[in-house]
Amino acid sequence: MSKGRLEAFSDGVLAIIITIMVLDLRIPRGTSNLAALQIVVSPFVAYVLSFIYIGIYWNNHHHLLQASHSVNGKILWANLHLLFWLSLIPAVTAWMGQEPFRLWPSVIYGVVLLMSGVAYSILQRSLVMHHGKDSPLRRAMGSDAKGKISIALYALAIALAFLNSKIPYLLYFGVALVWLIPDRRIERSLGKDNQ
Amino acid sequence: MSKGRLEAFSDGVLAIIITIMVLDLRIPRGTSNLAALQIVVSPFVAYVLSFIYIGIYWNNHHHLLQASHSVNGKILWANLHLLFWLSLIPAVTAWMGQEPFRLWPSVIYGVVLLMSGVAYSILQRSLVMHHGKDSPLRRAMGSDAKGKISIALYALAIALAFLNSKIPYLLYFGVALVWLIPDRRIERSLGKDNQ
Amino acid sequence: MSKGRLEAFSDGVLAIIITIMVLDLRIPRGTSNLAALQIVVSPFVAYVLSFIYIGIYWNNHHHLLQASHSVNGKILWANLHLLFWLSLIPAVTAWMGQEPFRLWPSVIYGVVLLMSGVAYSILQRSLVMHHGKDSPLRRAMGSDAKGKISIALYALAIALAFLNSKIPYLLYFGVALVWLIPDRRIERSLGKDNQ
Amino acid sequence: MSKGRLEAFSDGVLAIIITIMVLDLRIPRGTSNLAALQIVVSPFVAYVLSFIYIGIYWNNHHHLLQASHSVNGKILWANLHLLFWLSLIPAVTAWMGQEPFRLWPSVIYGVVLLMSGVAYSILQRSLVMHHGKDSPLRRAMGSDAKGKISIALYALAIALAFLNSKIPYLLYFGVALVWLIPDRRIERSLGKDNQ
Repeated sequence: MSKGRLEAFSDGVLAIIITIMVLDLRIPRGTSNLAALQIVVSPFVAYVLSFIYIGIYWNNHHHLLQASHSVNGKILWANLHLLFWLSLIPAVTAWMGQEPFRLWPSVIYGVVLLMSGVAYSILQRSLVMHHGKDSPLRRAMGSDAKGKISIALYALAIALAFLNSKIPYLLYFGVALVWLIPDRRIERSLGKDNQ
Repeated sequence: MSKGRLEAFSDGVLAIIITIMVLDLRIPRGTSNLAALQIVVSPFVAYVLSFIYIGIYWNNHHHLLQASHSVNGKILWANLHLLFWLSLIPAVTAWMGQEPFRLWPSVIYGVVLLMSGVAYSILQRSLVMHHGKDSPLRRAMGSDAKGKISIALYALAIALAFLNSKIPYLLYFGVALVWLIPDRRIERSLGKDNQ
Repeated sequence: MSKGRLEAFSDGVLAIIITIMVLDLRIPRGTSNLAALQIVVSPFVAYVLSFIYIGIYWNNHHHLLQASHSVNGKILWANLHLLFWLSLIPAVTAWMGQEPFRLWPSVIYGVVLLMSGVAYSILQRSLVMHHGKDSPLRRAMGSDAKGKISIALYALAIALAFLNSKIPYLLYFGVALVWLIPDRRIERSLGKDNQ
Repeated sequence: MSKGRLEAFSDGVLAIIITIMVLDLRIPRGTSNLAALQIVVSPFVAYVLSFIYIGIYWNNHHHLLQASHSVNGKILWANLHLLFWLSLIPAVTAWMGQEPFRLWPSVIYGVVLLMSGVAYSILQRSLVMHHGKDSPLRRAMGSDAKGKISIALYALAIALAFLNSKIPYLLYFGVALVWLIPDRRIERSLGKDNQ
């Protein structure tokens, strides 16, 4: 089964997720002074964080599918499972943005990031199983240390949120920054194959 | 006429339907305790159900078009008719989510599922008629027992809703679970052709 | 210049226009009886009408581009001009749906339909000019009587709205039904070329 | 790495940005006279302006990628950076539309235009670096005087807003009109190569 529509549908869903979040950056009618912007500072910071995460997922999804040749029914559902958790990001971003530095919004945001990370690694494993243990995709993945550490850090952030409500923010931004460094594993590995 | 844009447009509409439903998972401003999450439990359950249904439709649509070679004007409209009924899912999901276990929201949700099922089977028949009775698509469809039974179960759910408001939920989730088992008919049939 | 991205972008915009209109079919919190559905009857009728119109435009756009081989900068802007008027349909649909049979909502709805029709015929003319007077596209268009009559009927509906607020509805639904009969001109003409 | 998904994702995001802005053209329930339209005049003007800008970015993005053969990880992020600033346009359009001719909404609108212009020129530079100094893309860009002057004019508009709140509007519409003249540099340059 060709991967074309899986990519097109995922691009569509990710494009909408990343864009509708901006509907929460709304300034109340009748306020036009600079102070009005303070109302949206916290939603804006949450928006930036979530924009980066959706960008990272799109980027990694792009690399992952680039290294794949075909998909099967199981992969379609693993992909929908990933899109389900990512689709919750606008809702948890809105909550975290309107209630900054509060325990539960930070925790639930972390749970969605954690489940998205798990869903991504299930998708990755389904693709590797479909392509075989000696595929370029398999070699490109390596041990996927970065993915596993991220999931551990989301779990840590959730736990530490109960001690201090600012720690999760540090960890969420920290993990995002690590992923902003592009994932060259696949590009390098595919490059070797072509030599 | 090539099928490319029909797939692209359907992917776009389905991607938006599946994503805008999340706009209803909104927690009122000023609530940040765990109890606040209880407000969104029922909309969340409705969201999960509808996400699975849209996922199933996308999946089956993908398989159906994969087995098709071209489309005609009648198929374009049969497809738009399907998208019309599916486009109502966010509205009926929102209603069922905010009024759980009430008669009419459950009934209307069932009517939209029923009409979507009918619209899908019309699309299927249009494609089979266009490709001919001996096409791989025709063989792949078989008797479409699963599709027909689903439509009957939606009708049953609507009828039983008047006796007990929890029965429709059982049936809607039941049918969804049956469809989560991927439809291998087309994959298998196309596989045979290639041998 | 290839026509691929023009088609993809238009599909995206039309998919969003056709889907976000459903956000207006909202039942107030706390109402779950059948009478509650009466609140959305009028918005629903307006939604059906606009869904059909966007469906018609997508369908005709599909046929038009199918018959085209390439595009230029002028065509990109003629297409954006069409998308601009169509993008106003959700706003005027919402107004007409919440104020049924009132003069100005019907008139403004008609103005948007009229301008969309004009914009479509400008796009058509730009494509014909780009492909030449002897192109299959030119022959397929013929005199475009259907397009011209539609524009005249929208103008008529706007004028008659000042006499009777129900006449525009008849004309808007009437024109939509005429267009639901698929436009076989292009299919037929391209078919002849291939013989 | 192929450029297909970067184009598809950008088309999706731009299609959503250009369409969701219309959600702000909302007429309050219970008003159906012509005077009601006055409420949306200012949001409508802001919508037209932003529609033109997104149209310009889509158009230029289309030309830019048309002249490119492949992309790399850095280009993916430069593109996401551009989409980030453009994604803020619906929010700033809504603010400027509801508070016309007020200082801060106009200034913030200008800041978003300025940052979008800077992000576009970063994307352009990344693509030129990837394709080499002697590529058709590089020659097609030329000195990019139009891009540089636009950025300067956005900065000027922001500064002059503190003197007179109407000047930014003149400059924003002025720059948009200049860009409506299609950018023939790339078409011409690619045309020469094919001779």
